[in-house]
Amino acid sequence: MPRIRELGIYQSQLPTGPHNGITDVAGVAVGHFTLIEGDGGWTGRGPFRTGVTVILPHQGNLYEAKVAAAVHTINGFGKVAGFEQVRELGNLETPIALTSTLNVPRVADALMTLAIEQNPHIGLGFAATGRQGYASVNPVVGETSDGYLSDMQARPIGLDEVRAALADAVTGPVAEGVVGAGTGTSCYGWKGGIGTASRVLPERGEGYTIGALVQSNFGRPEELTIAGVPIGLHLLPPPNQRVEDGSIMIVLATDAPLDARQLGRLCQRAAFGLARTGSTCHGGSGDFVIAFSTTNRVPDRPERVVVGQTAVYEQPIMSLFSLAVIEAVEEAIYNSLLMAHTVVGRDGNTRYGLPAEAVVKVMRE
Amino acid sequence: MPRIRELGIYQSQLPTGPHNGITDVAGVAVGHFTLIEGDGGWTGRGPFRTGVTVILPHQGNLYEAKVAAAVHTINGFGKVAGFEQVRELGNLETPIALTSTLNVPRVADALMTLAIEQNPHIGLGFAATGRQGYASVNPVVGETSDGYLSDMQARPIGLDEVRAALADAVTGPVAEGVVGAGTGTSCYGWKGGIGTASRVLPERGEGYTIGALVQSNFGRPEELTIAGVPIGLHLLPPPNQRVEDGSIMIVLATDAPLDARQLGRLCQRAAFGLARTGSTCHGGSGDFVIAFSTTNRVPDRPERVVVGQTAVYEQPIMSLFSLAVIEAVEEAIYNSLLMAHTVVGRDGNTRYGLPAEAVVKVMRE
Amino acid sequence: MPRIRELGIYQSQLPTGPHNGITDVAGVAVGHFTLIEGDGGWTGRGPFRTGVTVILPHQGNLYEAKVAAAVHTINGFGKVAGFEQVRELGNLETPIALTSTLNVPRVADALMTLAIEQNPHIGLGFAATGRQGYASVNPVVGETSDGYLSDMQARPIGLDEVRAALADAVTGPVAEGVVGAGTGTSCYGWKGGIGTASRVLPERGEGYTIGALVQSNFGRPEELTIAGVPIGLHLLPPPNQRVEDGSIMIVLATDAPLDARQLGRLCQRAAFGLARTGSTCHGGSGDFVIAFSTTNRVPDRPERVVVGQTAVYEQPIMSLFSLAVIEAVEEAIYNSLLMAHTVVGRDGNTRYGLPAEAVVKVMRE
Amino acid sequence: MPRIRELGIYQSQLPTGPHNGITDVAGVAVGHFTLIEGDGGWTGRGPFRTGVTVILPHQGNLYEAKVAAAVHTINGFGKVAGFEQVRELGNLETPIALTSTLNVPRVADALMTLAIEQNPHIGLGFAATGRQGYASVNPVVGETSDGYLSDMQARPIGLDEVRAALADAVTGPVAEGVVGAGTGTSCYGWKGGIGTASRVLPERGEGYTIGALVQSNFGRPEELTIAGVPIGLHLLPPPNQRVEDGSIMIVLATDAPLDARQLGRLCQRAAFGLARTGSTCHGGSGDFVIAFSTTNRVPDRPERVVVGQTAVYEQPIMSLFSLAVIEAVEEAIYNSLLMAHTVVGRDGNTRYGLPAEAVVKVMRE
Repeated sequence: MPRIRELGIYQSQLPTGPHNGITDVAGVAVGHFTLIEGDGGWTGRGPFRTGVTVILPHQGNLYEAKVAAAVHTINGFGKVAGFEQVRELGNLETPIALTSTLNVPRVADALMTLAIEQNPHIGLGFAATGRQGYASVNPVVGETSDGYLSDMQARPIGLDEVRAALADAVTGPVAEGVVGAGTGTSCYGWKGGIGTASRVLPERGEGYTIGALVQSNFGRPEELTIAGVPIGLHLLPPPNQRVEDGSIMIVLATDAPLDARQLGRLCQRAAFGLARTGSTCHGGSGDFVIAFSTTNRVPDRPERVVVGQTAVYEQPIMSLFSLAVIEAVEEAIYNSLLMAHTVVGRDGNTRYGLPAEAVVKVMRE
Repeated sequence: MPRIRELGIYQSQLPTGPHNGITDVAGVAVGHFTLIEGDGGWTGRGPFRTGVTVILPHQGNLYEAKVAAAVHTINGFGKVAGFEQVRELGNLETPIALTSTLNVPRVADALMTLAIEQNPHIGLGFAATGRQGYASVNPVVGETSDGYLSDMQARPIGLDEVRAALADAVTGPVAEGVVGAGTGTSCYGWKGGIGTASRVLPERGEGYTIGALVQSNFGRPEELTIAGVPIGLHLLPPPNQRVEDGSIMIVLATDAPLDARQLGRLCQRAAFGLARTGSTCHGGSGDFVIAFSTTNRVPDRPERVVVGQTAVYEQPIMSLFSLAVIEAVEEAIYNSLLMAHTVVGRDGNTRYGLPAEAVVKVMRE
Repeated sequence: MPRIRELGIYQSQLPTGPHNGITDVAGVAVGHFTLIEGDGGWTGRGPFRTGVTVILPHQGNLYEAKVAAAVHTINGFGKVAGFEQVRELGNLETPIALTSTLNVPRVADALMTLAIEQNPHIGLGFAATGRQGYASVNPVVGETSDGYLSDMQARPIGLDEVRAALADAVTGPVAEGVVGAGTGTSCYGWKGGIGTASRVLPERGEGYTIGALVQSNFGRPEELTIAGVPIGLHLLPPPNQRVEDGSIMIVLATDAPLDARQLGRLCQRAAFGLARTGSTCHGGSGDFVIAFSTTNRVPDRPERVVVGQTAVYEQPIMSLFSLAVIEAVEEAIYNSLLMAHTVVGRDGNTRYGLPAEAVVKVMRE
Repeated sequence: MPRIRELGIYQSQLPTGPHNGITDVAGVAVGHFTLIEGDGGWTGRGPFRTGVTVILPHQGNLYEAKVAAAVHTINGFGKVAGFEQVRELGNLETPIALTSTLNVPRVADALMTLAIEQNPHIGLGFAATGRQGYASVNPVVGETSDGYLSDMQARPIGLDEVRAALADAVTGPVAEGVVGAGTGTSCYGWKGGIGTASRVLPERGEGYTIGALVQSNFGRPEELTIAGVPIGLHLLPPPNQRVEDGSIMIVLATDAPLDARQLGRLCQRAAFGLARTGSTCHGGSGDFVIAFSTTNRVPDRPERVVVGQTAVYEQPIMSLFSLAVIEAVEEAIYNSLLMAHTVVGRDGNTRYGLPAEAVVKVMRE
């Protein structure tokens, strides 16, 4: 399956990083666990076309070395976990996990268990572990629905599956399409999934990298627009498929030493990238953005409260950050579509992979 | 154990409802599940002094008849679930559950399971159930820490425990103190817990009822203030106890037909009631407010989109709502303290019940 | 000058109202005052290419019959007035005025004066006027910069000019382009200005009308996109013109009986319409949205606080509202460009009108 | 007139700075212009008991050296100016001015004029001044109503008055009570006004200073509480005075190098100080908080975008910041009352100064 850039039908103003993915931000790793199990109709549990995707801001102990972060809600019809604490403290202390809507609590619970394994004093404290305090941990989880292809009610993603996704996490190229949290999602009536892209700012933007990763699950077929071309008016998936309102999770990463307020400004721009692909932000969507910076770390129990930090006066280069976010989100969505193959799910429900050749043909015309 | 009103040391400007509890709002029910298990030190699991408390806006199927709601964050260092969707849609579709910090995901998952039992199409949809759509459900869960007395890490509250709390739910008098989500919490260095109170507006306020229920878990001993008297300067719990930053969950209910914006204004006032008891809003607290109105119901799949509703022009009586919220929250906190007896928890950690007689004595002096 | 619809290069999914303007929402009126004065360089005051535009939700006394409203900030680098009170009370009690950035306070002051003329008790109260209370009034003013063409520092728009704009206000067709608050603005390197459009929902959307009016002042030439076509890559204004970050004010009106929360959801969608025209949401922009509903009025001093109202369960038709907002904002921006002729301003600075024929030619190719 | 600390009826946990005022934060200056003019009833203009108070974060050119800032709305029924840009950019580029409600636009306009005098390129740009860009400026203005004592409708505070307040600005002791923006305000049925206080953190809080300044104009007589004592139940102003819902403006300053998010956390705590004095946050109040840090400056046009900065991990000392804010706000309100003498205003309306001796007497009993 080709990424959009390989098709020669998309150009950006800003250059990409080496992998054109969120992992171009140094230290960021992505892992997936994909669950494809069973066929035919629902028999009480399954079939499954679902999974979980984890994004790690760095390879160390995130709880001990938190990263600056912000969250933003475009349309809040969704079940994300962990947003309040990120808003208050401006940081992230677990990997970000993306999964199926109703699986959020089980995945949040799994992230807690894994944080506890790494930091055994969490929730227990000094008496049992010799560490002071019975600290808590704030798992951050996003979701979109995969109910059309998968038994969403059964919530099959738990600790083992999240652990497997973390074990799978690598820097370097990111697996896209029908993988992890994108296994069962739908986008513009086609098969959606995981997509990623990145942008590198020019010298006056200090060469910072911005990466985006999306879990795409939104849009009606006729809305799909690629690089300005209303593909959806010319190319439709086979008929007789149910299309419902959907959602998107957007994760942004950067190595620019931005603080939470500045990362919030990046989040706000993600909607512009989403709109470029034709989204009309349906009422039933849960459209959320999470952004983090890998540069300045926040220790869990700092030895000193006053520190020297690298900071950015963002205003002179804010428009560069904007453009980078918008382009990366746009391209990540295209990749999530083009890298997704056809999936037959529960009850014979089928989402067809967006055929690259047909897209190219429409665009050439 | 006496409630504060029985001690003759507290007077309010507005009268209470018949039970002086959140259940004075017609239809509202509260249930608890209390887990007290094990003694001594941590041996891998337990001891437990924890639980879950559920608040039901009405006795019907909440998913089919949602209620208007709002949420508000005073200090966001907490793990609440479901806030984003309440902000977007302005309603509540599950009972509110309160529990121990790290237990939030498991309780959220339990609320999902219970909503599914009542509405089997959730997450599955028409093919399997004859109902259209593979709908989601948004569990709303709050929390404070009970780590000083209970093994918080083990997260022992799951589906059975939430189900038991729902089975326990009744209108009428509310059990307070060391019960449900208040079993293991601490407040001003004393044993905290569940407390409730209510206020009834006078005729020019249409006789509306405002109820508050709190899960109290905050404050240092010297901060405690009751009815303006700095009790904490005169009456301290036995020494050598660890006191950490804590949190509070505040739930507000009313039968006034308020919309989400108006309920948000009520939420904002809760901090004033909290402050009256001496709180200095510590940095480590997760202080959250959830408000709902029982009057106008929102059907899950309305037959018509345009309806006639009863509405309130709140401005002429907003100060009455303010006063009612502030007084009810203040008194609910006092009740959470006074109704809580001494609890010995893990590692021999002890929280002493605030001794009513000693309080009365200090206040009389 | 043709509107985009007359050029045959733009089609929408939803139909427009009779005037394809914000005034298609019954009762809404728009008025402009345009100030074109002086030539050549700055000599201490002027030249001026500026003005003020007013939008009236209805023709009565707005202070006595307020309308439900919401505000939303896409990028907050701007000087809007009145947003805090709209957020709190969810209504609008003066006309909305749009003007030049630094002129906001003078226009806000003028709106106060005019509200006082109509309601002489404001700020003075019962002793002087026989009315109870020394009430305040909350003027709502938006702005974008016209500094490239006009002496923005002089702030020439005051009471007389706002009064003139109100006197000019009419229902029916709206003057667009180089008029009122759009007299001196720039958009995508071309002359921007005032633009408007409307959409009518189908029967299942109850036939509601959504109108948008914009004051466009943003974008770099190469970003301009019309109906998906990257016009800016093929058609550029004459070179050697300075282009800075800009802003946009977006006003939405509807006759659907939405409350403040629901109107806020409409606001959030405006960014998607903006993005369709190529905007990358520059860092220096002040991008704001104000939405109101004309249906349910809020009296200043209601006789009763409990009333019957018409309300909407928005969720089943939210996607229709979304589409209507997005399309109307998009088309209003196109109209603001196409209806604007070339303007020579201070220091000989020139903004060229976007040539409709050239646009059509590029789009046909 | 004595400040509360001189009466021996108030003690705090944290020590004050040398002046016990906002000016204890090094570099902060406060100035007032007080307008007392005319007697008797309204004759079309006046009498006036009003003014303007300015708070300067430092003595340099604020536009060229902005300071980190945050804003917070407790109850948004008010007309503050400049909040949106502070939220977006996290900084302050003019002095903060406080004044009478309807005078906000004229004072905002005056701040613009004064910023232009100091930075003549604002609004005009490079062609006229040799500086690039036709920049804007964001005046920040707060207000409460003084309509009971002053002709608020006339809006008598303009450029000359703001200029005079700036000329009056000094570091060192701050004039309190019936002065500047506090000249005509009312608080708990007594004469309110300007009050200030400060706190110094202990060594583990790095010795940072927190200062508060309030313009008090809220509360009913029976609500007044001082140091926990319900003064208002024992000491009332002479009868037959009209008391309306009121408002408060709270300004916080610190030399701790906090960023905008962290300053926002300080803002959120101000309500707790307000509540300590008896406030029930009436529906008609405009209760706003503005906080700034004097330490890290943001240049208007930075030479480099990446800089080294001093930063604070706030979490370990957040509770100290909380306590400092709460105590300083509480004490500033007491000072605003006790330092205010009786004022006879328009129509013979009178607000009596809170009699210190009577307060002491009640408190001793």
